[in-house]
Amino acid sequence: MAGSNIFYAQSGGVTAVINASACGVIETARETPKMGKVFVGKNGILGALNEELIDTSLEPKRNISGLRHTPSGAFGSCRFKLKSPEENPREYQRILEVFKAHGIGYFFYNGGGDSQDTANKVAAYSTRMGYPVQCIGIPKTVDNDLPFTDTCPGFGSVAKYVAISTLEAGLDVASMAASSTKVFVLEVMGRHAGWIAAASALAATQKSDPPHLVILPEVPFDQTRFLKRVAATVAREDYCVIVASEGAQTADGRFLAESGGVDAFGHAQLGGVAPMLVDLIKNQLGFKCHWAVSDYLQRAARHVASKVDVDQAYAVGASAVRLAASGKSGVMVTLERSQGRGYRWRTGSVALSKVANVEKKMPKKFITRDGWGITEAGLAYLRPLVRGEDYPPYDQGIPRYVRLKNNLCPKKLPPFEGK
Amino acid sequence: MAGSNIFYAQSGGVTAVINASACGVIETARETPKMGKVFVGKNGILGALNEELIDTSLEPKRNISGLRHTPSGAFGSCRFKLKSPEENPREYQRILEVFKAHGIGYFFYNGGGDSQDTANKVAAYSTRMGYPVQCIGIPKTVDNDLPFTDTCPGFGSVAKYVAISTLEAGLDVASMAASSTKVFVLEVMGRHAGWIAAASALAATQKSDPPHLVILPEVPFDQTRFLKRVAATVAREDYCVIVASEGAQTADGRFLAESGGVDAFGHAQLGGVAPMLVDLIKNQLGFKCHWAVSDYLQRAARHVASKVDVDQAYAVGASAVRLAASGKSGVMVTLERSQGRGYRWRTGSVALSKVANVEKKMPKKFITRDGWGITEAGLAYLRPLVRGEDYPPYDQGIPRYVRLKNNLCPKKLPPFEGK
Repeated sequence: MAGSNIFYAQSGGVTAVINASACGVIETARETPKMGKVFVGKNGILGALNEELIDTSLEPKRNISGLRHTPSGAFGSCRFKLKSPEENPREYQRILEVFKAHGIGYFFYNGGGDSQDTANKVAAYSTRMGYPVQCIGIPKTVDNDLPFTDTCPGFGSVAKYVAISTLEAGLDVASMAASSTKVFVLEVMGRHAGWIAAASALAATQKSDPPHLVILPEVPFDQTRFLKRVAATVAREDYCVIVASEGAQTADGRFLAESGGVDAFGHAQLGGVAPMLVDLIKNQLGFKCHWAVSDYLQRAARHVASKVDVDQAYAVGASAVRLAASGKSGVMVTLERSQGRGYRWRTGSVALSKVANVEKKMPKKFITRDGWGITEAGLAYLRPLVRGEDYPPYDQGIPRYVRLKNNLCPKKLPPFEGK
Repeated sequence: MAGSNIFYAQSGGVTAVINASACGVIETARETPKMGKVFVGKNGILGALNEELIDTSLEPKRNISGLRHTPSGAFGSCRFKLKSPEENPREYQRILEVFKAHGIGYFFYNGGGDSQDTANKVAAYSTRMGYPVQCIGIPKTVDNDLPFTDTCPGFGSVAKYVAISTLEAGLDVASMAASSTKVFVLEVMGRHAGWIAAASALAATQKSDPPHLVILPEVPFDQTRFLKRVAATVAREDYCVIVASEGAQTADGRFLAESGGVDAFGHAQLGGVAPMLVDLIKNQLGFKCHWAVSDYLQRAARHVASKVDVDQAYAVGASAVRLAASGKSGVMVTLERSQGRGYRWRTGSVALSKVANVEKKMPKKFITRDGWGITEAGLAYLRPLVRGEDYPPYDQGIPRYVRLKNNLCPKKLPPFEGK
């Protein structure tokens, strides 16, 4: 029988609400009699390998509740993907040793597709080794590309940020277009799926409102059609606002702006679609252009988080604890949207084996036939996800985000030599 | 004797709160018995030349009050500078004809240095021509570079946006630095003065907090010193957050953004201080970097406006009406900071002749000796300007900004042929 302590880790790119999930885990575990302490990996799963376990029982209650309104990863996250136990058994062995040494019987991994895959492997490995750890995946990704869940915590807040930024910058361009900038390009995240760019469409309340073109990775970019559409939009509206996914690509799968570098997962590092498009428009159409790249600002923007997103992020954390307490393992918490009028949601779960490394693209029915816009079905899906405001507390005009003590447990094992 | 109607125009780059000034003008004029209608130039001063006058008396009260929370220029602004009456008398002649035709005796020009200059020239010209129009300048510029006023409406909200963005993106980078991005560069506005970049320093509550380097146009950029400082910061903090003014320049006055670098594919660098600095750091130090350019997002960000800024923007508009009603002309409304403990402010005024085309740079005492930071004196100046939140109303998760009817007055004159 494994121990009663929990190991929780954040994985991959952080979000405005991933700490709300941590808050849900820790607060719910504190109220659940059979649960012991919640240990959190310093810098995600690296904390398990390095035996750097943050002991949240040493953190005052107000710090834990402050996580709900604090963006990014308060314990550190990492880009580090475990290989399979067949390829590198020493990492799994080490994690299990650390879990045993600290009485850990529950592993909650808060991340995207790669992390769900890892959680699944740890579950299987630990069972094989006769120390069955209950592994629960907690969804998180601004990219909204996890399957079997209606949405992913983190996405709703980015969606809100991008929609509001598009609305506000659109008003700016509109008010100056008579004598100044005609075209504005906003570049947003989304390597493989256009969910974030699509959310910009929530800015429009009339057909003529920005964004006038949304460039999605799902729709091959055609330069001639693009320039024609921009010219037509400026002719009609006197200005044109474009929102482009960083993952925008041509029909042959070439990213519009490949920086050449790769990240730790071997994914191409992107950035620079906006200046590339502006260069094209300036040279071919001669309009005065401006561009913005919001990069980390969009996924860290807790100051304008979606209340629905914050609530859901908390709920998936809390649900992981409840599922574990009821004996579940090898599942990811999901969000389910109720059928019928109005928007209602609840948590559910799905087997990790089904989730691992499946990517959810935007359905075709969410993209207008011309490929530059979002359909009413798409908007109906997106709208409730940005609902509600959940402002952080402010001090002297600046949000008061919590700073944890992050005390580490004393180490019990020799250093890990296997990396 | 000139008429009792007001002509109000917005000029140059718009801000998150310039409409709050319009709101102050219109609401106060409606309450001031001697004032007639408020006409607003469609697209700024172009509206006077083209006799396109928006009749705000046709706008419902709730639309006018909604201007207080609506960013950018609700009537259109423009980049158009009148020449002097000696160089181009036809423009002044035309403006005066339009003013006469519509019973306009007051001209409120809401803009930066150029606009104050124009207001001054219109005042002098109209007096010379025997139809003395009372001209009042209303300060506006995100650049905070107008003299004789403690601050410029529009700046406080950009300052707040930049400080919060730096805080939030800084938390993001900090939480991933162990295995991912080490350096983040945020490019902000400020061609000649570093006020906006300086405001990012409000993000820090401890010495080790971001921003670690602020790059100001006032301090010549030295590549060797810069790289050394970035390397030292990463060595000490494990990450480095840099906020750079778009106007950053070398000792010989060359803008960094124009330094002609090439990207990974050998394409000419498309402009932007942030990508240029990131290129430099990647090539010379090898750190993984990310960058953001907030461009119009920063000056349109009404969703996170400073309450002090909104209040001041309204007050300078209201004050212009009161000054005019009391017979004043040829002055710009100013903001005065009271001496002593705590932050108190009130409106004042200064002769337009003094203001015109004088640029207020950051005082040396606001910049740390090493040139990369802001002193306590600078922070003490900046802090109160971002104070307070003034959230717009939301509908379904998106701010409900007002959309005016903008009905034009019937024209009384033949078209202007003088442009």
